[in-house]
Amino acid sequence: MAAFHCIQALRFPSRTHVFFPIGDQNRYNIINKKQRGFLVFASADKKSDKELYLKSKVETLLDSVKWDGKGFAVGIAQNIDTGAILMQGFVNRDALATTISSQKATFYSRSRSALWTKGETSKNFINVHDIYLDCDRDSIIYLGKPDGPTCHTWSETCYYTSVPDLLENKQVDGNKLALTTLYSLETIISQRKAELALPQTGKPSWTKRLLLDHDLLCSKIREEADELCRTLEENEDQARTASEMGDVLYHAMVLMAVKGVKIEEVLEVLRKRFFQSGIEEKRSRGQAN
Amino acid sequence: MAAFHCIQALRFPSRTHVFFPIGDQNRYNIINKKQRGFLVFASADKKSDKELYLKSKVETLLDSVKWDGKGFAVGIAQNIDTGAILMQGFVNRDALATTISSQKATFYSRSRSALWTKGETSKNFINVHDIYLDCDRDSIIYLGKPDGPTCHTWSETCYYTSVPDLLENKQVDGNKLALTTLYSLETIISQRKAELALPQTGKPSWTKRLLLDHDLLCSKIREEADELCRTLEENEDQARTASEMGDVLYHAMVLMAVKGVKIEEVLEVLRKRFFQSGIEEKRSRGQAN
Repeated sequence: MAAFHCIQALRFPSRTHVFFPIGDQNRYNIINKKQRGFLVFASADKKSDKELYLKSKVETLLDSVKWDGKGFAVGIAQNIDTGAILMQGFVNRDALATTISSQKATFYSRSRSALWTKGETSKNFINVHDIYLDCDRDSIIYLGKPDGPTCHTWSETCYYTSVPDLLENKQVDGNKLALTTLYSLETIISQRKAELALPQTGKPSWTKRLLLDHDLLCSKIREEADELCRTLEENEDQARTASEMGDVLYHAMVLMAVKGVKIEEVLEVLRKRFFQSGIEEKRSRGQAN
Repeated sequence: MAAFHCIQALRFPSRTHVFFPIGDQNRYNIINKKQRGFLVFASADKKSDKELYLKSKVETLLDSVKWDGKGFAVGIAQNIDTGAILMQGFVNRDALATTISSQKATFYSRSRSALWTKGETSKNFINVHDIYLDCDRDSIIYLGKPDGPTCHTWSETCYYTSVPDLLENKQVDGNKLALTTLYSLETIISQRKAELALPQTGKPSWTKRLLLDHDLLCSKIREEADELCRTLEENEDQARTASEMGDVLYHAMVLMAVKGVKIEEVLEVLRKRFFQSGIEEKRSRGQAN
């Protein structure tokens, strides 16, 4: 999570950084970044050796990307908190330069033959915190935080069509996203919560019992936290620690479901606490990390 | 996490499923899947209407992908537990058919003009649990579990080249991966642990104090779990729940660092507990979920 403070703070005096106007990679302007983030173009006479140096660094970087015959690399936008792959597009030299400077995920629309900043119509921008190239330098990850649903269908991500479901003739459901383990579990718990509104038959599942009985839920969370600690205190093996941590996580996630809090919100709290502006917050709630 | 049990169990008797031999999409063979996963080709005379039905379903699916002019779609392999983007390649019709049947992430190598199952040389296969298409059907996610490092450089993923680092002339480090929030935090804690071996100057950070003082660490974990519960018991607001859950997670991750346990291992425990063989384990440790 190197983050863009690295670029923004490329050692210019008075917090200036470089802005590449869309569609014009040969013209660079220095802008001042005021404390509240408002951007103002500075006059050309503030150009300095450092600016030229940065310009040359960016050009070198753009030269180092292995653009294909048509000038494209694959660009993948990933949610920095959840890891969800939001969308994939193609990136050309201008698009990458624009993303570096604007910190909004920008692609090249091959259908419209134009630069395209995701969100320029919907306002659901993807705010890019970091950019990674792959080992071949022909594939790019934009690690960012979306302002809202990324897909043009207003689904959270573009990946909601499961191949196994298609093969089983199941309906494609815009809400059934490609989910990794933590978010699949969150979805299951949330489904159990929704099912509580329906008539119940048979013995309720453990998740439902926890959702209904808050005393039971809280006693389990305290118990599992204690058991996790005891794996350290009593020198139990690593598999036991992993298992107890799984218990802590699951039970705490049930509590979050009761409260209507998403894991993504917790991760955002942690990111802001530990990586605010790309700089580790030295005193998290009064404590140095 | 629809998972491949959907395909494997496509209602064939005795747990048969379809295998597409590499490079031969027109020939399909039924194989039996024994309980331990050993695959055996069945004789051709076991072909049935269901097999033909499945063949036609897969063909329809392959037809529905928006292959580009050269017959490719973008393929992205993602770690199902951590969400890390492992690699990106290109997928053609054969590659997708092979991935569906073999459950090993398979691409088309444009440089070698050949089908390429990731791991066929290194043995670091990516075991695919689910496949998703994007809204345009020209981009594919293989959600899978890697057997080992994915990159040919033996880095865990191919994405270890940070653009901000390049612009700051920092050395590219194969260990500095594109990480989302939880794994960035895990890395920070692990760095603090490594730094304990060096001569210490000044007041230790909070993370280091916790790493060194296990009584303090365990008392904090119990205290934070209690505070999380109290957000429910005392009807505190959602922001408080998210914040307290962040505290629980951070302190528990310090304990995991002490024990040398990775978040990925915990997620694997949860995945196996809740989604084993794509079927929710109805009784997790004796309890129905």
